Amino acid sequence: MRMVDIITKKRDGHELTDEEITFFVKGYVDGKIPDYQVSALLMAILFKGMNKREIVTLTDRMEHSGDVMDLSDIKGVKVDKHSTGGVGDKTSIALGPMVAACGAKLAKMSGRGLGHTGGTLDKLESIPGMNVFVSEEHFRKQVNEIGIAIVGQTGTLVPADKKLYALRDVTGTVESMPLIASSVMSKKLASGSDCILLDVKFGNGAFMKNVESARELAKVMCSIGNALGRDTRAVLTDMEQPLGYAVGNALEIKEAIATLRGEGPKDFVNLCIQSGAIMLEQAKIAKSEKEAEEMLKKAIADGSALNKLREMVKAQGGDVSYIDHPEKFPESKYVKEVKANKDGYIKRIVALEIGESAMRLGAGRETFDDVIDMSAGIVLNKKVGDKVSKGDILCVVHTNVEDHAHILKDIENAFHIVDEFVAVPPTVHDYIH
Amino acid sequence: MRMVDIITKKRDGHELTDEEITFFVKGYVDGKIPDYQVSALLMAILFKGMNKREIVTLTDRMEHSGDVMDLSDIKGVKVDKHSTGGVGDKTSIALGPMVAACGAKLAKMSGRGLGHTGGTLDKLESIPGMNVFVSEEHFRKQVNEIGIAIVGQTGTLVPADKKLYALRDVTGTVESMPLIASSVMSKKLASGSDCILLDVKFGNGAFMKNVESARELAKVMCSIGNALGRDTRAVLTDMEQPLGYAVGNALEIKEAIATLRGEGPKDFVNLCIQSGAIMLEQAKIAKSEKEAEEMLKKAIADGSALNKLREMVKAQGGDVSYIDHPEKFPESKYVKEVKANKDGYIKRIVALEIGESAMRLGAGRETFDDVIDMSAGIVLNKKVGDKVSKGDILCVVHTNVEDHAHILKDIENAFHIVDEFVAVPPTVHDYIH
Repeated sequence: MRMVDIITKKRDGHELTDEEITFFVKGYVDGKIPDYQVSALLMAILFKGMNKREIVTLTDRMEHSGDVMDLSDIKGVKVDKHSTGGVGDKTSIALGPMVAACGAKLAKMSGRGLGHTGGTLDKLESIPGMNVFVSEEHFRKQVNEIGIAIVGQTGTLVPADKKLYALRDVTGTVESMPLIASSVMSKKLASGSDCILLDVKFGNGAFMKNVESARELAKVMCSIGNALGRDTRAVLTDMEQPLGYAVGNALEIKEAIATLRGEGPKDFVNLCIQSGAIMLEQAKIAKSEKEAEEMLKKAIADGSALNKLREMVKAQGGDVSYIDHPEKFPESKYVKEVKANKDGYIKRIVALEIGESAMRLGAGRETFDDVIDMSAGIVLNKKVGDKVSKGDILCVVHTNVEDHAHILKDIENAFHIVDEFVAVPPTVHDYIH
Repeated sequence: MRMVDIITKKRDGHELTDEEITFFVKGYVDGKIPDYQVSALLMAILFKGMNKREIVTLTDRMEHSGDVMDLSDIKGVKVDKHSTGGVGDKTSIALGPMVAACGAKLAKMSGRGLGHTGGTLDKLESIPGMNVFVSEEHFRKQVNEIGIAIVGQTGTLVPADKKLYALRDVTGTVESMPLIASSVMSKKLASGSDCILLDVKFGNGAFMKNVESARELAKVMCSIGNALGRDTRAVLTDMEQPLGYAVGNALEIKEAIATLRGEGPKDFVNLCIQSGAIMLEQAKIAKSEKEAEEMLKKAIADGSALNKLREMVKAQGGDVSYIDHPEKFPESKYVKEVKANKDGYIKRIVALEIGESAMRLGAGRETFDDVIDMSAGIVLNKKVGDKVSKGDILCVVHTNVEDHAHILKDIENAFHIVDEFVAVPPTVHDYIH
């Protein structure tokens, strides 16, 4: 078998056999097939696509390109979630403790972030002492004992995805449905949970710019997961405006804590309750969505969900006093209000603009060498559909960047205020199962 | 400027600017842009194409990626020819001396070959002592004094094509019109001649499988050459059956000698006369095609063309006695006849089959490490349109390979004999200028 023949076959629009896909994934990970042949194949896949069988095989071979987590010694149903990412997405940090408090086991591997803000791991690290790189043994023990752990991926899981993603990033081959789907799903499958809930975001602040492409990606990923023996479902959620109010690392941790105290933003609470209800159904802990929602609301009301977060932080070495006293998180030097310049209704809050502004305020990384300012970010005061009067505070900006006037201007411009009434858009747009 | 943005732009079907093309060619030659980004771009070009301006710029930047030959100190009009390659293509070795005998200056850089038989350089090396790698100074002096030299390309011409071609070969990106055209033309332009005649072959034994794709390639290459200031024309020639009778290195040299003695196969003689007439017109040596043809026929009849070959071989260190006594070329151990198994007319002689059989007989290389058997090959006795009786010799096979019975069978099967009359196909199908 020769790699050039595999490239040519896909280039000419033919299906690759399972053997050819195995050959290319294994050969690449083993260093026998060079980057330049793989990038040509990736570009051919981008143009010619893959059918379901090819994508399932590709995902399976990527999943098994390194170690896979065996969570069988953890009691109960292991659930996992994955978000395709957006602005202000702190879902795992609130939702995880909620479902764990209801009896599901969340053994979650997460990542750092490039762009608007840090990733879930970066956000967790804003809690002093919090260790997101624990041993595999520690990870299993923690999930078994307290029902939740959110940690960084170990080095030996899915090496094929690490190599492929790095290559795609520099060869214009990121935007390919089969490659996106196999990348996400190989990691989720290798993480070993029984059930997977995917949160596929769409809108200007998300990777998928419209609901149709998000739906297609969600369907492909669900069919991969289900074909490979995991109960996989997806929600399609809105990322035209930021999720919740807070955008920024410590700011989002504070919002997650507030949510677990029953004081969260409505859209974010809705997303957590609806997603959590699906996960509890997947784990067969609740018999119906309604029952699951009641359980989750109760876990917030009785403090058990917040307590789960406290347990997790403690188990990973974090300073729990920050959970009980979020005012301890350091404040930025500059805290500036952005105000409405007219009366009306909020029509749009361009998530992409807010995200990019947050990065410029210090909340995100442009390159992997950049250091995140945990205190920086933006806290919205208004959301789409809200009525505002001239002079109302639209959001509060937190930064240590001296030269921030132009960033404030850009943030102001991200808010579109119109005269006509604007309905509040739903957060969860659809449910794929 | 970032290479990933250039890849993405072409991937999305947009035109690249001259600056972007310059950046990528220069960066690749300088080693600043890695193979894996270039192969992704090449695949995007294969899918999305390039317009005329892009192809002309690409060719120009490739031409100037290294040294270019300055032939200005050679008196007279310098003409060059290039064939896209086929089975039994010994054209340069006969045509070159013919046009040189008529006063044109042929300063030709040629190549080795992978596949059916060796390339022009390999064929010339079947003449003992023949040196195809002379100094640039020797090359100029030889062309100036005797009017003809056929040598290997120097190491510093068109390094961009060397790198790009090697990469295309292993990444499934050979079959792209802009890349084929720019590769051929960058080399021809860098070789410094004033006029270029392209022999674009079509048929099963050629790279272009049909006359339409050959015509498209010819037009693109002519437009590049003319846009960059060289009189460039093309003939479209038939490669459904082998050219002439001989296929194999020393066998083809013998046929070229026979042709210069006025004893060549009709189709091959026709191609040489028609191509040569165009070249003499390009060089403004003849006022009309008719006058040019008369000059070429006279050069054969009076022995001046054969004498040019003799002069060239002598100037490059070859043993001239082989030109005067071609029977000196060593014979293969096995010389076998393949006979017709029925009466009828030759409908097809599948060039691809004959070429591949010649390689298996020892006449060609499968990899660059293989050593060519100069004596091996096939000499046809019949061509398409010939009437045959059962038992007539179709061809004579020359080989040192012991186990050749199955190869003889394949060669026999390459001849298709039918009952109905078959017209002799034209060799030169069209002329693009």
